[in-house]
Amino acid sequence: MRLVVIGGVAAGLSAAARAKRLDASLEVLVLEKGDQISYSACGLPYLLEGQVRDWRQLVGFTADEFLGAKNVSVRTSTEVAAIAHSRRELTTHSGEKLHYDKLVVATGARARCPEQCMPLHTLADGVRLWEHLRQTPPARAVVLGAGYIGIELAGALRARGWGVTLVDRSEHLLQRDDTELTATLRRVMERHGVRVLLAHNGPPPEAELTVHATGLQPNVTLAEGAGIELGRTGAIRVTERMETNLAGVFAAGDCAETLHRVTGSPTWIPLGTTANKMGRVAGANAAGRRERFPGVTGTSILRACGLGVAFTGVSQAQARQAGFRPAAVRIQSRDRAAYFRGRPVTVELVADCETGRLLGGSVLGEYGVEGRINVLATALQARMTVEDLLGLDLAYAPPYAPVMDALLVAAQQLVKEL
Amino acid sequence: MRLVVIGGVAAGLSAAARAKRLDASLEVLVLEKGDQISYSACGLPYLLEGQVRDWRQLVGFTADEFLGAKNVSVRTSTEVAAIAHSRRELTTHSGEKLHYDKLVVATGARARCPEQCMPLHTLADGVRLWEHLRQTPPARAVVLGAGYIGIELAGALRARGWGVTLVDRSEHLLQRDDTELTATLRRVMERHGVRVLLAHNGPPPEAELTVHATGLQPNVTLAEGAGIELGRTGAIRVTERMETNLAGVFAAGDCAETLHRVTGSPTWIPLGTTANKMGRVAGANAAGRRERFPGVTGTSILRACGLGVAFTGVSQAQARQAGFRPAAVRIQSRDRAAYFRGRPVTVELVADCETGRLLGGSVLGEYGVEGRINVLATALQARMTVEDLLGLDLAYAPPYAPVMDALLVAAQQLVKEL
Repeated sequence: MRLVVIGGVAAGLSAAARAKRLDASLEVLVLEKGDQISYSACGLPYLLEGQVRDWRQLVGFTADEFLGAKNVSVRTSTEVAAIAHSRRELTTHSGEKLHYDKLVVATGARARCPEQCMPLHTLADGVRLWEHLRQTPPARAVVLGAGYIGIELAGALRARGWGVTLVDRSEHLLQRDDTELTATLRRVMERHGVRVLLAHNGPPPEAELTVHATGLQPNVTLAEGAGIELGRTGAIRVTERMETNLAGVFAAGDCAETLHRVTGSPTWIPLGTTANKMGRVAGANAAGRRERFPGVTGTSILRACGLGVAFTGVSQAQARQAGFRPAAVRIQSRDRAAYFRGRPVTVELVADCETGRLLGGSVLGEYGVEGRINVLATALQARMTVEDLLGLDLAYAPPYAPVMDALLVAAQQLVKEL
Repeated sequence: MRLVVIGGVAAGLSAAARAKRLDASLEVLVLEKGDQISYSACGLPYLLEGQVRDWRQLVGFTADEFLGAKNVSVRTSTEVAAIAHSRRELTTHSGEKLHYDKLVVATGARARCPEQCMPLHTLADGVRLWEHLRQTPPARAVVLGAGYIGIELAGALRARGWGVTLVDRSEHLLQRDDTELTATLRRVMERHGVRVLLAHNGPPPEAELTVHATGLQPNVTLAEGAGIELGRTGAIRVTERMETNLAGVFAAGDCAETLHRVTGSPTWIPLGTTANKMGRVAGANAAGRRERFPGVTGTSILRACGLGVAFTGVSQAQARQAGFRPAAVRIQSRDRAAYFRGRPVTVELVADCETGRLLGGSVLGEYGVEGRINVLATALQARMTVEDLLGLDLAYAPPYAPVMDALLVAAQQLVKEL
């Protein structure tokens, strides 16, 4: 039995390694179109900032190392041109034919930007930009797109001392319809010297360097050509076992959609950590197990200019769209006891008025952001109510939290609105 | 209607303020035997360390400020000598009689140590020790008792540059039957120059200063004298509405027991944050609401010599005692991406083999301890299984976490043992 995995980054390698571990008799082959596998694209902004010294640090395994560690063969620079599922056969760009019994499609996503633009999505993009910056340090750089990558990248380039302008067509940062969040994050970025141009529909300002961070789209051309169905999001539709509509063909990672556990609808949120989990499940099922991936609650976090911003679940506007009757509060508190130099932290909570169920939240601050958003993510997964949050036995000691944590303060406020 | 609250620290003031806010017509009177109210005893080690400059920073409100802010009268230096519940009457030590309609007993806990010892429990203890240290800096100090307070205090005194010996009769730190935890924490403390003497049953070493941190016991003499029933733990038995066996008499905070949500049994875990929550519920119910306090999952955290140590739920040994058939794993991971200077973090998880239910966990590391223990505390409250943990959508970005969080790595290990 041969399992072929198309794609050698997060989802693909997780699937391959897990399948091989669960069934050593399986022949597992990974095909990666790029020349590197197993890299952390999320680390690219920190490479450009200089916090990561060399791009090789972002690479977990080379193909040889992966073979040694996981007993899985990887062929790099091998792009699949077509899948003929009736014959269980792949054709590579070089014309080679390869048989498979089981298939995992982990073709990822690609940057949505014009031809010949400078994106920051793959390791190759990052290395190209990194080398460009070494050879031609720009006096002025423009970052187009104020999503996660754009904001992190703008902060990273600014930290190098260059003039940076962050440009977006929308009037909001992070594509959130949230005036207060946009104002806070903008203020912090501007204080760090990043120029922020929002609601900007004209041509971008002149600069020596222009980087596109204008979004991603799932890589589904290959899958579509093979008759693999896409979902409403435009990514590959999968069951909770990560199966596509074709028997024995799984999909995982940034090319696949998943269930949003708050709205109950399919969603497409390309993220390395989700890709890893989906890959593990796809690999297990390809090896004959019956595992399920329960979906996501939509957790994300970024750090730019010293500020952490994190979300989970849905915003009030998204909740309304999903048919809830939401109430929301936003409170200011501190990350730890005031007498212990506690720094401001802002918590927003969204809940459903009819059931009291927590629907989402955001946390913003210099410190203590990741832990608090993770508590909310856990509460969302457990379908907790705001009332349930009030009873959370959260850790308290002055170096870590105020005696009444910001999450509890927010829950105490919100419970009055329900 | 008059509500009298005995005790003016965490639980008492929370109860008083909440009751008054919910029913402005209520006359609320707080009686505090000490001369300060509303202080953070948890901040005392940091006062002694010098991280908090002045003890007044540990005081939230003076009695006057509390009256102004909450419209609640507080009488300090007023100790209650007896409660005659049949007459709804209190007698103070000075012989004064005071009528009540509703009563909240929030008499707290006291240090368990010999007469004339130097404990560190109340603000007065802390201020006395603080002044002693200013006037007579000790060349050598001995801290008796290696629980939370003892360990934090030993770290704090050592940070001042004095020779410190931490002594305990047990062979373990933190009263946990955990050889690995004891070894790690001991190593870190010794590296900071704290001498650690465990399994020490003889007289303590000679020193200029000896501080007792040998544990607490609930202050229940007054309650017992009034016919208020105690529970098995020795603290006041309360319902989930914080009612005692006497009609109209509530108890909250360190003098009261509460439900352990993992074992389902009453427990006594004196902590400021729990006291606040119990107090809020007691106050609301004293004001005629019907609220409940759901109990605790046993979360605690401390920081000493730069190391954070946190627990929630039960240990494997405690799980066995509570009738579970526990399995446990302990894994080493990093608090964030390795290429982002991730530092070691150790996670231990305990689960029930029969149901797969998570029963407890611990987290140990320099950073990222509080957030991870809070996720586990939330999971415990929601009665999640280890399988559920695998699906947690935790925040990922290189400055915050590795792509597969330490909690998930631990859950992946543990699920194999079940």
